[in-house]
Amino acid sequence: MWEDNIRRVVPYTPGEQPGRRVIKLNTNECPYPPSEKVIRALKEADYESLRLYPDPLCLKLRERIADYYGIGPENTFVGVGSDDVLSMCFLAFFAGKLPVLFPDITYSFYDVWAAVYGIPCKEIPLAEDFSIRLGDYPHENGGIVICNPNAPTGVVHPLSEIEEFVKKHDESVIIVDEAYIDFGGESAVRLIGKYENLAVVRTMSKSRALAGLRVGYAFGSKKLIGYLNDVKFSVNSYTMNLPSLVGAAAAMEDEEYFQEILGRIIKTRSRVSEELRSLGFRFRESGSNFVFVTHPEKDAEEIFEKLRERDIFVRHFNRERIRNYLRISIGTDEEMVILIKALGEILGKKGADE
Amino acid sequence: MWEDNIRRVVPYTPGEQPGRRVIKLNTNECPYPPSEKVIRALKEADYESLRLYPDPLCLKLRERIADYYGIGPENTFVGVGSDDVLSMCFLAFFAGKLPVLFPDITYSFYDVWAAVYGIPCKEIPLAEDFSIRLGDYPHENGGIVICNPNAPTGVVHPLSEIEEFVKKHDESVIIVDEAYIDFGGESAVRLIGKYENLAVVRTMSKSRALAGLRVGYAFGSKKLIGYLNDVKFSVNSYTMNLPSLVGAAAAMEDEEYFQEILGRIIKTRSRVSEELRSLGFRFRESGSNFVFVTHPEKDAEEIFEKLRERDIFVRHFNRERIRNYLRISIGTDEEMVILIKALGEILGKKGADE
Repeated sequence: MWEDNIRRVVPYTPGEQPGRRVIKLNTNECPYPPSEKVIRALKEADYESLRLYPDPLCLKLRERIADYYGIGPENTFVGVGSDDVLSMCFLAFFAGKLPVLFPDITYSFYDVWAAVYGIPCKEIPLAEDFSIRLGDYPHENGGIVICNPNAPTGVVHPLSEIEEFVKKHDESVIIVDEAYIDFGGESAVRLIGKYENLAVVRTMSKSRALAGLRVGYAFGSKKLIGYLNDVKFSVNSYTMNLPSLVGAAAAMEDEEYFQEILGRIIKTRSRVSEELRSLGFRFRESGSNFVFVTHPEKDAEEIFEKLRERDIFVRHFNRERIRNYLRISIGTDEEMVILIKALGEILGKKGADE
Repeated sequence: MWEDNIRRVVPYTPGEQPGRRVIKLNTNECPYPPSEKVIRALKEADYESLRLYPDPLCLKLRERIADYYGIGPENTFVGVGSDDVLSMCFLAFFAGKLPVLFPDITYSFYDVWAAVYGIPCKEIPLAEDFSIRLGDYPHENGGIVICNPNAPTGVVHPLSEIEEFVKKHDESVIIVDEAYIDFGGESAVRLIGKYENLAVVRTMSKSRALAGLRVGYAFGSKKLIGYLNDVKFSVNSYTMNLPSLVGAAAAMEDEEYFQEILGRIIKTRSRVSEELRSLGFRFRESGSNFVFVTHPEKDAEEIFEKLRERDIFVRHFNRERIRNYLRISIGTDEEMVILIKALGEILGKKGADE
C-alpha cells in the first residue's frame, strides 16, 4: 500500500492568522510597519530580472548582515525565516545517535523538527521560575538548543552564562536561538570567533518587522557554516527570492528606524508590565516583545476565550506546566490600552487606565 | 567531537550565475521577462503588511492555481520553487525501506535529496535513445520519480504511457516532475482524480519566467496533499513570502502573455534545432526549453569551454553516459543567432545563418 511509505508526523501549529481586522497579539509580530527603505527597495526592485535565478549564495545580503555585526560573510547564513534556518541546522548538525537536548518549555517547533528528521531528543525541565537550568544539561548529548530570550517565557540569560555553557559543551553543536534578543539581552554573536561549535540563529520577523518577507539568518564559525551550506544546497539551491534579498538588505541599512521601533516596543512593554501587575498578573520580567503571564484567580484559557470574543487574539498553549499561562505580544500603545481595559473587565476589576 | 554528529553530504551544484553580462543558456531560464501583471502586482503590493506573517496556507494562490487547472485547492500545494516542493515530497512520501526508483540520467537533484534524507534509491538506466524504460521499473519499490519531459534529455513521454505506468504502480507514490511540460507534452494533472498515489510537480521558474520569485507547486489527491502538508508544516509554517504569493497569483492571470512567450520559445527551438542539425549536432526532438546535443566530431567539453571563452554559457554535466553532451537553453532569437555563429566557428564550419 502506497501509504505505508508515508512519513507520519504531527506538525507544528502556528498562531492563528485571522482574516478580519482584530487586535492581533498572538504571533509576536511587530506592531509597526517595516522601514520606509525596505518598502522603497521593494517598489523599485528590478522585477524584469525575476526571469533569472537569484544568487544562490545570497552574497550581497550576507555581506550586509555580516558588516552590521562586524563578522565575515563566511560566518553568515540566510534562510526563509529562522524556521528554515533552524530546520536546516537540525538536519545538518544533529545527525548523531545521542539525544539532542532542549528545555521542556521552549519554542515548540524544536521537537517537531526532531520528529520529522528522526533525531532523538530529550527535554530538560526548566526551573520552577522558568529559568533554563544550564547546569543540568548532561555532557553526553547529540547537540543542544537554547532559546535566549526563551520563548514563550521571555526569560533572558546573560551572555556570561551562555558563554560558560558553550565552553563546557565543546563536544556538541550548540544552537542559540536569538529570535527575540534585540528586545533585551546580549547576543552570542561575538562568541562565534571563539567557539567553533556555536550557531547563533536570528530572524527579521520580529524586530525588523518583516515576518511577511521570510528572512532569518545564522552566525557561526566558517567550518560550521560550511556544513550548514552543504545541507542547504542538498535541499534547495535557491531559497531566497529576489524580493527577500533586496528587502532584507535594505532593512539592515535603516538603523535609526530600527532603534526607534525597538525603543517604542520596550517602552510599551514596560508600561504594560506595570499595568498587568496592577491587575494581579504574575510573570517574569520579559526580554522579548511579549509577556508570558498567569493570574492566580482566573483560568488562562477562560481569559483567552473572553479576549477572543472581544476580537483580541493572544496565545494559549495547551501544554503541561504552562496551561495556565498566556503569551501576549506587545502591540501598539493603542492596542495595549484596549487589551488592559478588556482584561480589567474580564477580571471584574477596573483597568489600570480607567 | 562536535563534528561527529554532522550530516556529511555532497550538495547539488546549480548552474553558474555569472555576475557580468553574458549569453546565459545554462539554467533553462526564460529569455523573456515576466508578465507586466506580475511586475505591477509586485510594485503595488501592500508592503506595510510585511510586518505580519503571510497566510501559512497560501490559500489565495492555491485557489488561483487550482482554478487554472480545473481542480481544487485541496489538491494543490505550493513551495519555494519546485526544488522545495520536490524536497518536501521526498521527505513526505519516501519514508519506507525499499529503494526509490528514478532514471540514471535525470534531474541530478533526486539522488541528492535521497542522500540528505537517508532514502535508499536505485537508478534505472535510460534506453540508448534516452527514453525512460517505463517497463523496466520493478513493482517492489519505495516510490518512483519520473521527470517528463526528462531533464537534461528533453525527451517527452505521452500521457498515455505515464497513465499506464501510474496505474501499474498503484502501490507506490509516483512523482511526475513536470518542470518543462508547458514547452511540449501533456500534463498528468488530469490523472490526479483517478490515482490517489500520483503527485505532479510544476514550477513557475521556466514557462512563467519567475525563477527569481521561487514558486513551485504540486497536484495530487486530497489525501496525498494532506500528507505533504503535514511534513511541510513540520519544517516551516510560512515558506511563501508576501511577494511570491502576490506575484505568482498575478502570473496565473495573464494567459495571453503566457501563450505568447511559450509560442516564441517553441518557434525559436524549432529553428535552432534545424540549424544545430545542419551543423552536425545529434539530438532527440526536445519537448522542453532546452536542447540536449552531441557532436560526432567534437568533444562536448571542448565546445563548452570555447563557448565560455566567448561569454556564452551552456551546461555540461561531468557524468557518465552524457559526458559528450551539452544542454543548451533556448534564449531569444538574437542570442541563438550568436550561439549558432559561435558553434559554426568552433566546428570550423560556416554557421547556418551566414
